[in-house]
Amino acid sequence: MEIRPGKLLAEIDNPNDLKKLDETQLAQVAEELREYIVDHVSVYGGHFGASLGVVELTVALHYVFNTPVDQLVWDVGHQAYGHKILTGRRKDFHTNRLYNGLSGFPKRSESEYDTFGVGHSSTSISAALGMAFGSDYKGEKEKHHIAVIGDGAMTGGMAFEAMNHAGDSNKNLLIILNDNCMSIDPNVGALKDYLTDITTSPTYNKIRDDVWKVLGKISKFGPNAREIVGNIENSIKSLLLKQSNLFESLNLRYFGPVDGHDINHLVHVLRDLKDIPGPKILHCVTVKGKGFKLAEQDQTKWHAPGKFDKITGEIRKTVVTEPKPPKYQDVFGHTMVELAEQNDKVMGITPAMPSGSSLNIMMEAMPDRAFDVGIAEQHAVTFSAGLATQGMVPFCNIYSSFMQRAYDQVIHDVAIQKLPVVFCLDRAGIAGADGPTHHGAYDLAYMRCIPNMVVAAPMNEQELRNLMYTASEFKDGPFTIRYPRGQGVMPVWRTPLEQLEIGKGRLLRAGEEVAILTIGHIGNYAVKACDELEKQGIRVSHYDMRYVKPLDEALLHQVFEKNKKVITVEDGCLPGGFGTAILEFMADHNYNAKVIRLGIPDRIVEHGEQDELYQECGYDAEAILQATYKLLELSAVV
Amino acid sequence: MEIRPGKLLAEIDNPNDLKKLDETQLAQVAEELREYIVDHVSVYGGHFGASLGVVELTVALHYVFNTPVDQLVWDVGHQAYGHKILTGRRKDFHTNRLYNGLSGFPKRSESEYDTFGVGHSSTSISAALGMAFGSDYKGEKEKHHIAVIGDGAMTGGMAFEAMNHAGDSNKNLLIILNDNCMSIDPNVGALKDYLTDITTSPTYNKIRDDVWKVLGKISKFGPNAREIVGNIENSIKSLLLKQSNLFESLNLRYFGPVDGHDINHLVHVLRDLKDIPGPKILHCVTVKGKGFKLAEQDQTKWHAPGKFDKITGEIRKTVVTEPKPPKYQDVFGHTMVELAEQNDKVMGITPAMPSGSSLNIMMEAMPDRAFDVGIAEQHAVTFSAGLATQGMVPFCNIYSSFMQRAYDQVIHDVAIQKLPVVFCLDRAGIAGADGPTHHGAYDLAYMRCIPNMVVAAPMNEQELRNLMYTASEFKDGPFTIRYPRGQGVMPVWRTPLEQLEIGKGRLLRAGEEVAILTIGHIGNYAVKACDELEKQGIRVSHYDMRYVKPLDEALLHQVFEKNKKVITVEDGCLPGGFGTAILEFMADHNYNAKVIRLGIPDRIVEHGEQDELYQECGYDAEAILQATYKLLELSAVV
Repeated sequence: MEIRPGKLLAEIDNPNDLKKLDETQLAQVAEELREYIVDHVSVYGGHFGASLGVVELTVALHYVFNTPVDQLVWDVGHQAYGHKILTGRRKDFHTNRLYNGLSGFPKRSESEYDTFGVGHSSTSISAALGMAFGSDYKGEKEKHHIAVIGDGAMTGGMAFEAMNHAGDSNKNLLIILNDNCMSIDPNVGALKDYLTDITTSPTYNKIRDDVWKVLGKISKFGPNAREIVGNIENSIKSLLLKQSNLFESLNLRYFGPVDGHDINHLVHVLRDLKDIPGPKILHCVTVKGKGFKLAEQDQTKWHAPGKFDKITGEIRKTVVTEPKPPKYQDVFGHTMVELAEQNDKVMGITPAMPSGSSLNIMMEAMPDRAFDVGIAEQHAVTFSAGLATQGMVPFCNIYSSFMQRAYDQVIHDVAIQKLPVVFCLDRAGIAGADGPTHHGAYDLAYMRCIPNMVVAAPMNEQELRNLMYTASEFKDGPFTIRYPRGQGVMPVWRTPLEQLEIGKGRLLRAGEEVAILTIGHIGNYAVKACDELEKQGIRVSHYDMRYVKPLDEALLHQVFEKNKKVITVEDGCLPGGFGTAILEFMADHNYNAKVIRLGIPDRIVEHGEQDELYQECGYDAEAILQATYKLLELSAVV
Repeated sequence: MEIRPGKLLAEIDNPNDLKKLDETQLAQVAEELREYIVDHVSVYGGHFGASLGVVELTVALHYVFNTPVDQLVWDVGHQAYGHKILTGRRKDFHTNRLYNGLSGFPKRSESEYDTFGVGHSSTSISAALGMAFGSDYKGEKEKHHIAVIGDGAMTGGMAFEAMNHAGDSNKNLLIILNDNCMSIDPNVGALKDYLTDITTSPTYNKIRDDVWKVLGKISKFGPNAREIVGNIENSIKSLLLKQSNLFESLNLRYFGPVDGHDINHLVHVLRDLKDIPGPKILHCVTVKGKGFKLAEQDQTKWHAPGKFDKITGEIRKTVVTEPKPPKYQDVFGHTMVELAEQNDKVMGITPAMPSGSSLNIMMEAMPDRAFDVGIAEQHAVTFSAGLATQGMVPFCNIYSSFMQRAYDQVIHDVAIQKLPVVFCLDRAGIAGADGPTHHGAYDLAYMRCIPNMVVAAPMNEQELRNLMYTASEFKDGPFTIRYPRGQGVMPVWRTPLEQLEIGKGRLLRAGEEVAILTIGHIGNYAVKACDELEKQGIRVSHYDMRYVKPLDEALLHQVFEKNKKVITVEDGCLPGGFGTAILEFMADHNYNAKVIRLGIPDRIVEHGEQDELYQECGYDAEAILQATYKLLELSAVV
């Protein structure tokens, strides 16, 4: 289905076309852009609310600044749909987030307007500051460097690290704080309250308006305006604004708050700011989902709603004819409540992913025992370690790719001290349409090398529940459970909780010659492959190893005493992962066998549906079949 | 040599003994404690300035608070010598930082007074807040949780993440900001300037004194004082202190600044703060090295000076009779300047380790091209990525164990985008006396699994220089060079720069039957072993592989076509490391061989001299000999 752009938008193939328009036409461009995004997402799905919230800002930025020479960095990048549409990608936008299509995030290889690839939070100020240092060194004094960052992303520690550095520099950096009180879920933390206070203080707003008026006049003085404004602005600020200000404390000149939906005012403000040298921050207040009433009202639901009817707002659901297996996320969420009901020491921690992880189920049921600590993975882990020192049993749920951000804390604050923190790594393995920044490809490798760490992965819902229960009873150090995004395989999943032996795998099917060793959910693809092989009269063994660390050595001795042909399958990177752990076992115990390791290859895997990418990477059921044929030296069976 | 404590200190075996003293005696205790630390470090070496700076604070904290029930967390922990001496470890203090002796940092397994193990920066607020949540949940309402954190550590992002969470809670948390303007090197960044402004503002100090007087009176009112103080304090603050305050912005009640060397005032302030509920921060100004003039004057040099004459201040040096090899650090520092002179795109970045990494050499020579970005590893990496987008060639030098803190940035901001950032991982492998928090044990494993990443390690000074030069010319993605703490092997090291082929190892010695594959500096231990074997008539091959990624596959084919007995040696963790990469190669190419992998075993290795720990871990020259004997099925030769 073709989505037709409005009249003005249809003529905009890049920001130069936008710049030809008169300022009075910008409001209409914004309206058309908003409608185009609504039309698109309603048909094709994708992220929604964030991009609607910055429509005016997007238009204003490309109108005022000389992109792509001026460097524009979007933090996280959920909100960059408008940016993509205005920068030459409108006609391909229907491929957004699809296999081989446009990325859902800014991506350097996709466009020169995407100056920095994003996906994870809080990187934009560091990146833009690095650019500003580079430009300055090269003598490109007139070049602007703009980081657009949400108030949620602002709570991530590296944003603070970058501001501390920026405030100490004289580089040409504009930070735009897109303040909408939301991450995917509502923001938490002291910073949010602080920003609300600023935004709603009448005294402050009066003074601010006065300052803007003075600045507006001065900036018309001509060539020397830049310097004059710089000087005067400082003195006015320090005289008039004796106001507590976090950003001024860090020596960032603070401007705002401004209404992020008043496009003409935005254009004026941004023009003025171009003339003010040095690092500065513009506080811009926006509404996530702006212009689509339902999205404004339930911003979490409409962060990425899937396809929907844009008139009624009804979200399209696949017609369900039989009971479907639940998402692993929901199994996690409900099981947390069960565990916490049984064990008064159990607590839940999430860094800003209550709905994504389903910890919100526990946060609602037991608000004093489940915490959203903000976009703050590092803090989440060490905070959990602190809880563990007091005898609590913290379950710290972090997406696998986000856990990369707390790697030191896992080693330094948890593993070295053998503190019993349970790490639940959601979105482990191929994450799907979010692409390379979100694939949880490396966790088996980076967790497995840490001493004292247990690393497990459930093959289905029951296993997840049992591993969680087992972890809650484990006192001897940290315990990692990793599981993928999306559905499991058991429609009836609320099984009785059972404690599993640590480091004990299981034989699922006994066969001859070839043994298939799997870890986690991907084992279900091996089950399919084994079924198919059985139809062909080939019986192979299938072991669900359950634990990557400690390995079930007794079971592996059985395997390698019997089998000289082995396939390992994992939804994780091949270097250093599960299959590699098996090779280490073999080397340490003098086993020889032909081993084919299937998993994520040693390259960046782009976005697409999980099944598409399992296939591309060569570890779906078909790939397991082929590997078996290869080991058996059979030509492929049709 | 026995160090004798002063009269009062001699009677203090734990904080209960301290509490028996009269307040008027505390200044003397502090003096004796300071002298004891000076005596000790002058004879035994260790960290120095940081502990001298907090002597009064240490005494006051243990005098006022009910440790170890009240939870005291020292950030980083360099400064905890006084704490250790007062908490039962005076008599063992001569074993500080020695093999099998006391740890140089607080450590949970060493004492119940060490509530949280530290070493890396900026963890204390998260840990103490986690403790506070745990205590509160258990109903331990009177328990205090205290994080002592330096102004340098405060720039680490996770401290900000923790404050954002703390400010939103009502938990019993006291943050003591130990403001001495120093990390190991002088602090940098906007926060430092801000703190200096507060500290030196006369208006502010006047108002502050008034507030303290009022609070002092109120807190004598008896049982309700706590609540009254809480309420009034808030109103006084908001009325009187219309002052920009970073911490108040985050809803942390701010007190201070106070003189951290006025022990009696400190005791009073801390007592008052005990009665003020909720999260709060005390800004305490101290002088690093306080009481030892030379240390006050050159704080970087005296951070950890080694042994010295406490009267003259002369630092004892080993008598040098012949030219010694330089430290890898100095080779790095000087080579940076050479590279930058040849290539105007080369830049240097360090997160707060200018002197430790020797980047200070370049910072002095070329201040616009080498940057200390503060204790901010995450920012350092993404800032470097930003520089790379502008065509710069950033060398980002981070200690191996600290790089754990920027792991996500390495993957997300550099590797996925194939940006040519050079990572120089200093202190890779066993780090020595700093112990488990500082060992760079995991880098080969955690870097090797990242796509697009080159991972190399030099065996000597010349190789380091050549790898740095090679990396500076490499445009196709990130390039990691890891090298150990301390001396290399080449007294004459300023060799001509030569470009090395990427992924190309070298044969150092051709032999029979057994092949030894090494990576990095530890290869020199294999050279010794091979020399010894040769004396015994056993000729083995020795390959310096240089690169862990990409592996030199051509060379490895030669090795495995010829050898069925192989030893791999690395100064890094065995799971997932260099030896494992060799196993993956073998599996992928159908080679069978008996492989013995030597390296850091899968457990936490404690502190000690590097050679002591190589021996303990089984990868020194002797261990390589023994592995060879084993492969050759020889009984050990004397």
